[in-house]
Amino acid sequence: MKLCVIPGDGIGHEVVPVAVGVLQAVLPGLQLVFADAGWEEFCRNGKALPERTLAAARECGAVFFGAVSSPMQLVEGYRSPIVQLRRELGCHANIRPTLSLPLASSRNGIDLIIVRENTEDLYVGDEQSDGEVAVAIKRITRKASLRVARSAFELARNAGRQRITIIHKANILPRTDGLFRDCAREVARDFPEIAVDEMLVDTAALRLAQAPESFDMLLAPNLYGDILSDLAAAFGGGLGLAPSLNLGVAAAIAEPVHGSAPDIAGQGIANPLAAILSVAMLLRVWWQRPELALRIEQAVRATLLDGIATPDVMSPGVTTQHLARVVIERI
Amino acid sequence: MKLCVIPGDGIGHEVVPVAVGVLQAVLPGLQLVFADAGWEEFCRNGKALPERTLAAARECGAVFFGAVSSPMQLVEGYRSPIVQLRRELGCHANIRPTLSLPLASSRNGIDLIIVRENTEDLYVGDEQSDGEVAVAIKRITRKASLRVARSAFELARNAGRQRITIIHKANILPRTDGLFRDCAREVARDFPEIAVDEMLVDTAALRLAQAPESFDMLLAPNLYGDILSDLAAAFGGGLGLAPSLNLGVAAAIAEPVHGSAPDIAGQGIANPLAAILSVAMLLRVWWQRPELALRIEQAVRATLLDGIATPDVMSPGVTTQHLARVVIERI
Ligand SMILES: CC(C)[C@H](C(=O)O)[C@@H](O)C(=O)O
Ligand SMILES: CC(C)[C@H](C(=O)O)[C@@H](O)C(=O)O
Repeated sequence: MKLCVIPGDGIGHEVVPVAVGVLQAVLPGLQLVFADAGWEEFCRNGKALPERTLAAARECGAVFFGAVSSPMQLVEGYRSPIVQLRRELGCHANIRPTLSLPLASSRNGIDLIIVRENTEDLYVGDEQSDGEVAVAIKRITRKASLRVARSAFELARNAGRQRITIIHKANILPRTDGLFRDCAREVARDFPEIAVDEMLVDTAALRLAQAPESFDMLLAPNLYGDILSDLAAAFGGGLGLAPSLNLGVAAAIAEPVHGSAPDIAGQGIANPLAAILSVAMLLRVWWQRPELALRIEQAVRATLLDGIATPDVMSPGVTTQHLARVVIERI
Repeated sequence: MKLCVIPGDGIGHEVVPVAVGVLQAVLPGLQLVFADAGWEEFCRNGKALPERTLAAARECGAVFFGAVSSPMQLVEGYRSPIVQLRRELGCHANIRPTLSLPLASSRNGIDLIIVRENTEDLYVGDEQSDGEVAVAIKRITRKASLRVARSAFELARNAGRQRITIIHKANILPRTDGLFRDCAREVARDFPEIAVDEMLVDTAALRLAQAPESFDMLLAPNLYGDILSDLAAAFGGGLGLAPSLNLGVAAAIAEPVHGSAPDIAGQGIANPLAAILSVAMLLRVWWQRPELALRIEQAVRATLLDGIATPDVMSPGVTTQHLARVVIERI
């Protein structure tokens, strides 16, 4: 078994190695292939996602991506490496669970999964500007919408979920978001045991804030999924604990939802749990080793129950290294 | 003084009349011009926003809009009347405050204002589909971005606000959202006393959920403003209490943030406070009668402090009519 490891930028360099250590504790034979991508790589070599990184990722199939620093200004030649990687590897579904955890900052009773379309919408990078007028294309296709819907419903079936809420803004975007919604409803017919409803994205933001425990699964186009998954993460203890898995047919990318966190990078206090829980998702869904995923997840929960965590969620907090060591001991 | 009153659909018919009653209690001479718009109007006469309604709104300048039911399916000839009205009347800034209220469902220490661009972005209605591929245009112009930014900074100055956070997703949309951000920063130079920062929309959703009290003002493109203002409303007691003012040079539209709420329409229990607080915004900002706005706002607060409210926020709740009567008594 091979894993392509791409730490990326900032705290990616801190959380990825320790999460790899946790993974090796349950999968000792794992072969690692390290590769570069990100803003630092772009500054060094002019490419945010070098060819050899992409090749390594393709060859391994299983990828573990840390975090990237995205420039907020237009930089000629730069395109987000994670957005590229998701598309190039055909990881069409981004699975982002939020679960209540034994933490003061986490709310009770939450166990939701957001499935985010991962290849199109406003993320296609089709944008123009003459300085006075700028336009960007929001692109929704039947093909990608059906594909992500199918993944969501299959996941729901496998995980014994009851209900999927389709997110859109079809009152304003009847053709694009309407297409996404209609495709989801079409796929839903093959899964009669799973209830389906739909919700406007603005209403979903409100409902998530008011009653996150009322959701089971959400299925959303790319950008809404981006926004709502960050929002949901707030109730699962924050971004330091939010894992995700980008899932395709030929590849899967484990990726903590957080960014490169330049404000705390280099201090050794970044929360590695999002990264650790992301590799657990790789175990469960990609490598089909749910029993190993469970061991990691239970070790994380036991560690938190003992009041051990990094400063973002507990005070006084321990270091990244220390936390990972405790998790490994508990496995 | 004239006010064009458009109840719209659903609970618009219930909350608008009582809010007008509250307004008349402080402005007895007010002349009312009633007009139709919305889904019910579209079904009756084939136009969601009839010409005569638009003419009446133009003539009055001050408009009070209730709520609309938007179809979630593509309906030939239908376009959202409120989106049209905002654009036709040149109401380029949508001002949406969230304030802590003496209610169990409201969080403490919140006093934020979202200023939402109101005329463009994905709301331009430029969408196409062949059934397989659908595209929508996200349009951001320098002109509209500068204009809404100027309104936001002027509002900040007049209201003694300290900081404006510009919301965007310029890491993915450097040309469109980047233009919006750059225009805001350009305008900011004329307001050196107001601090400026920027935040990605996904991060803003997370931060609003975690620490809404950390925000002062937010300035956002249309769609992000839509999503974030619903989210923020969750912490101010819910949509039943969220007011807004669509502000332009020649017109202003007071509009509760909530929709037509078909689930409770006709029961007489809709919360009229969002509508009442919206007309208070019209008084303060459009008619420049802050002292009258304050009387209404204080009466609302006193009513809530006495534990009187509709069932959405208090149990047992009173009726729409009863609540409005109590507010009028307290004025
Ligand atoms: C870094 C950025 C491109 C990315 C996204 O918008 O998808 C991030 O916010 C995420 O959610 O993974
Ligand atoms: C009804 C709908 C068109 C509207 C919008 O999206 O602007 C509503 O959600 C709002 O926020 O006022």
